[in-house]
Amino acid sequence: MYIPSFQDVIDAHARIAPYVHRTPVLTSSYLNELTGAELFFKCENFQKAAAFKVRGASNAVFGLSDDMAALGVATHSSGNHALSLAYAAGRRGIPCHVVMPYTAPQAKKDAVIGYGGVITECEPSTSSREQVFARVAAQTGADFVHPYNDHRVIAGQGTCSRELVEQVTGLDAVIAPIGGGGMISGTCLSLSNIAPDIKIYAAEPEQADDAARSFRAGHIIADDAPVTVADGLKVPLKELTWHFVSTYVTDILTASEQEIVAAMRLTWARMKIVMEPSSAVPLATILKNPEVFAGKRIGIIVTGGNVDLDRLPWMYKTQQGE
Amino acid sequence: MYIPSFQDVIDAHARIAPYVHRTPVLTSSYLNELTGAELFFKCENFQKAAAFKVRGASNAVFGLSDDMAALGVATHSSGNHALSLAYAAGRRGIPCHVVMPYTAPQAKKDAVIGYGGVITECEPSTSSREQVFARVAAQTGADFVHPYNDHRVIAGQGTCSRELVEQVTGLDAVIAPIGGGGMISGTCLSLSNIAPDIKIYAAEPEQADDAARSFRAGHIIADDAPVTVADGLKVPLKELTWHFVSTYVTDILTASEQEIVAAMRLTWARMKIVMEPSSAVPLATILKNPEVFAGKRIGIIVTGGNVDLDRLPWMYKTQQGE
Repeated sequence: MYIPSFQDVIDAHARIAPYVHRTPVLTSSYLNELTGAELFFKCENFQKAAAFKVRGASNAVFGLSDDMAALGVATHSSGNHALSLAYAAGRRGIPCHVVMPYTAPQAKKDAVIGYGGVITECEPSTSSREQVFARVAAQTGADFVHPYNDHRVIAGQGTCSRELVEQVTGLDAVIAPIGGGGMISGTCLSLSNIAPDIKIYAAEPEQADDAARSFRAGHIIADDAPVTVADGLKVPLKELTWHFVSTYVTDILTASEQEIVAAMRLTWARMKIVMEPSSAVPLATILKNPEVFAGKRIGIIVTGGNVDLDRLPWMYKTQQGE
Repeated sequence: MYIPSFQDVIDAHARIAPYVHRTPVLTSSYLNELTGAELFFKCENFQKAAAFKVRGASNAVFGLSDDMAALGVATHSSGNHALSLAYAAGRRGIPCHVVMPYTAPQAKKDAVIGYGGVITECEPSTSSREQVFARVAAQTGADFVHPYNDHRVIAGQGTCSRELVEQVTGLDAVIAPIGGGGMISGTCLSLSNIAPDIKIYAAEPEQADDAARSFRAGHIIADDAPVTVADGLKVPLKELTWHFVSTYVTDILTASEQEIVAAMRLTWARMKIVMEPSSAVPLATILKNPEVFAGKRIGIIVTGGNVDLDRLPWMYKTQQGE
């Protein structure tokens, strides 16, 4: 297992700079008063493809040799990684094969196709997904880019907090959502090198708290199909992200479905930005644990902005404790 | 009638700087491709009170002598001007009296009260509003700050496009929504002095097109109670704003209710920002008149972000041609 170095982050940053945004950092005096902390929102919802995932995906795509690139890239994902990989492959002009369950939202399929990706549908089960993906990979020879358990992806995600500490001085902590742990691992990689005094917190839905339980247990615990409105955070840690989480993270905090939706709505209402449910989990945990953050300068990674505008979660009852 | 000068804008800018944001300018490569133009969105939805109106309101409030300020300020409005004046008065620590129809949305009332404003309710008719306002003004001695037909307000709004031309070089045109004409007048005041080659367009709902008809007729035409989703744009021009509109504006373009809602949704979906319906009218007219804007660098004033998140206009049928 190759553990990426900070030099990999520096290389990634130079490699992806033409294809991704240096996203802005926004603040809200209202939310500062409400939390008693100084919050700095790193707005990856304004990123290309509206998600930080384009950083890691672009690093993987543009790091390929021409020979390998000609065969394209492939992944299985129905989320932001699929959009981001399709975007990056489109920018390089190489094929991108995405295996998705046929049940995935049409909007997500349309977005992948809009970026030039090719979708192969599978049944909504792990066995079908793996079987179909193996066939696609064998037929195309495309390079597999895992959504997070990939050193190129983690080095790419590390560029985000590298920018954040250039944009905001004197941070006491950075907090980001955790699903598979790609963003948190990139954050650990960068901050442990350039700002080791900054604490790193991860935020997770109570209903998909496998990372928090892994953190307490000292080994990876994976849940089968957790249910949460934060649909980007359902996947489990893998060995590479576990390395970073277990080594550098101060704590993993959790929030309920209602707390996540309330934090999301509050951000839309007060900051006037469109963020997806996963991105609201950090603020939800800050509001829930004010004593941890009060009086401190906190960077928050707003991971993405892909949300169904026709079906906002405060307009329907979220599933609780099922 | 005192016509404000550009020196008034400079003075306003210095006066209000501690209380308002220098808002960011955002771009979207997707919308650039779609329109064939280069669009620069000046994001007043990120402004204090989520509206450009806080610029003019703050200029009026902080320009008062201490003696006058002690008596407070007053206005009649159920929209962003009321919030903005309450915010500015709150920052100065003086009373703010707002006359509002009792039918105004509770969220608006709560926001005014949240900023420390005092609401006096009236019937939802012009006669009741004027009667109640006259009583409040007489009882309190508060200074009347009109939402737009006030030279202090117009000078304050002029600070917005002054910032815009500092932030973006080589603009060919600036476009803003038009209701009473406060923002457009401030834009005319600033640009005619510092960048007279930049064309100024106003954008208006078809269903509240009194400014467009006034512009063609050469005199003010006022409609009674127009119906539009762009609820900030229902009010008519007045003599001071008519002066600027009739002297400096190149054209007033209109868009239908469906076009406004589609442009609003498109901006939320692609730019990930929360803007109110009025703010979407410029993009709607650009999409409708591509030949006017193609190949040009266009500044767009995003006037505000106050919207009911529980009732978004693409979720209900808009009223058409009633």
